[in-house]
Amino acid sequence: MRILILGAAGMVGRKLTERLLADKALGGKAITAVDAFDVVEPSFSDPIVTSSAGDIADKATVDALVAKRPDVIFHLASIVSGEAETDFDKGYRVNLDGMTHLLEAIRAGGDAYHPRLVFTSSIAVFGAPFEDAITDTFLSAPLTSYGTQKAICELLLSDYTRKGFLDGVAIRLPTVVVRPGKPNKAASGFFSGIIREPLAGQEAILPVGDDVMHWMASPAAAVGFLIHAATMDTEILGARRALTMPGIAVTVAEMIEALRQVAGDEAVALIRRERDPVIETIVSGWPRKFSADRAVEAGFIADADFVSIIRAHIADMAAEGTKN
Amino acid sequence: MRILILGAAGMVGRKLTERLLADKALGGKAITAVDAFDVVEPSFSDPIVTSSAGDIADKATVDALVAKRPDVIFHLASIVSGEAETDFDKGYRVNLDGMTHLLEAIRAGGDAYHPRLVFTSSIAVFGAPFEDAITDTFLSAPLTSYGTQKAICELLLSDYTRKGFLDGVAIRLPTVVVRPGKPNKAASGFFSGIIREPLAGQEAILPVGDDVMHWMASPAAAVGFLIHAATMDTEILGARRALTMPGIAVTVAEMIEALRQVAGDEAVALIRRERDPVIETIVSGWPRKFSADRAVEAGFIADADFVSIIRAHIADMAAEGTKN
Repeated sequence: MRILILGAAGMVGRKLTERLLADKALGGKAITAVDAFDVVEPSFSDPIVTSSAGDIADKATVDALVAKRPDVIFHLASIVSGEAETDFDKGYRVNLDGMTHLLEAIRAGGDAYHPRLVFTSSIAVFGAPFEDAITDTFLSAPLTSYGTQKAICELLLSDYTRKGFLDGVAIRLPTVVVRPGKPNKAASGFFSGIIREPLAGQEAILPVGDDVMHWMASPAAAVGFLIHAATMDTEILGARRALTMPGIAVTVAEMIEALRQVAGDEAVALIRRERDPVIETIVSGWPRKFSADRAVEAGFIADADFVSIIRAHIADMAAEGTKN
Repeated sequence: MRILILGAAGMVGRKLTERLLADKALGGKAITAVDAFDVVEPSFSDPIVTSSAGDIADKATVDALVAKRPDVIFHLASIVSGEAETDFDKGYRVNLDGMTHLLEAIRAGGDAYHPRLVFTSSIAVFGAPFEDAITDTFLSAPLTSYGTQKAICELLLSDYTRKGFLDGVAIRLPTVVVRPGKPNKAASGFFSGIIREPLAGQEAILPVGDDVMHWMASPAAAVGFLIHAATMDTEILGARRALTMPGIAVTVAEMIEALRQVAGDEAVALIRRERDPVIETIVSGWPRKFSADRAVEAGFIADADFVSIIRAHIADMAAEGTKN
């Protein structure tokens, strides 16, 4: 089978591609070719991978990728929330027009072509005020252009699926922690930072109160969601093709206690509390907790607890160290 | 003030335009010009009206209409559910691209231009399975391309409003009854037909059971919703600019009893029961009842009861007879 991965150079896209190349199979079928695409050319050493770079807002680029008739398409390519908010046109071009080009390219394949399309949506499709635990029938009322674009993509995916043009599943990823790499400017960055930096012996700043709760999943769980979405029986989804993924709802206080359990008081001592009203305001508008019942029924599996998430990060770092 | 009405030749658009021309004012401000646009040229005799015909899927057409800087824009133009389902491309072109052109034309007006945009959405943004009475936080999971297009337009309207490009309100109209005119092939046509035809001394076919419940509003109530959406204080809506309008939830049995009360047993005897499994299946997927709390709090007013809806139709028919 042939697999197309849009956004293969991103953190989750790279991990997904590596997992597929390691498994060499998806849903019991051998993988014979992987097309890895991103705005910068992804780098994989496996001979079954063809890497390319380009702009998914360019119709001809997307047409050419889909012309190879991939059996499964993972669409993870998008610009992030902050950039979509500051560059309104670019956000709609990349995050919405890119999806439209993809859907139309698949539809142009005709009756004989009916691939599985796995789209990474986001819990940013939800906006405050919320229910206590957001259920699967809660409205999408995004408070960002990024969330709006993701919500529209979900609607299009469900409609193209209902019309029989493709077999789509949209998965709303929780915030992925622990993200590897350097601290970044994202408002959600501290969720990873207060674990990643202390584990590396460095100070981390906590800009919000200990009672802040958020919905999280590990990078490995995110890859697991993508694989399951690509291989599951989609009949049970009916016409509602967007699913909130099962994360774990954890408070900052619980994250810190998990860090203490795994790495001791010295690690926790590296967290410096320095409230940032701007970040506090942004975070207060984010969803805290979901009851992702449909996804759980459909076989998606959350992380066991936050200690497991930390341990998975430590194992990842060790593996990276071995590779480099 | 200048008003632009897209879809001014349709049933609700015509009634809205007539009401505005009769009032000669909107929200306490004198109306000096009305641009009435539709796919067929609307016909109004008032000298303040400029009528034109065209395709809202054509960007230049929409740009030219918005270039006149209307203070209030009513966007009622769309192809109907059945046509959007059979002609997939046309549905997206007219119902989605038309809206995109409109939003972009307004945004291109810059900081000094910030019109009120009233968009007629539909309860077709909802799809079964439903809650018993659908609340204002229930998800949009449409089961038609038409409903998908309306749901996407709502999301765009909210995002363009949130970004400060315009001041938008999307109103989800209930099924409008009693529609004047001849019976049509729409699956919902019988809701009007079982009242309209007997009142005109003609037989009407009832293709569903008496226990079918649906969410309805009179043409006059629909016009009232549009006027209120154009003049209300939108502050209370926050970022959620789409509102389910307050209809009345009525069963077919209750409709028939209201007809009996207004027009007697002879009228009711003209209703012939002839079940149609195709229509029954379609109707079973439609929402039955809503709790439109936000709209009621925002001052939108429903019809009093179904007897009032019938009486309003009789008065409309009498007025039409006088005019012609």
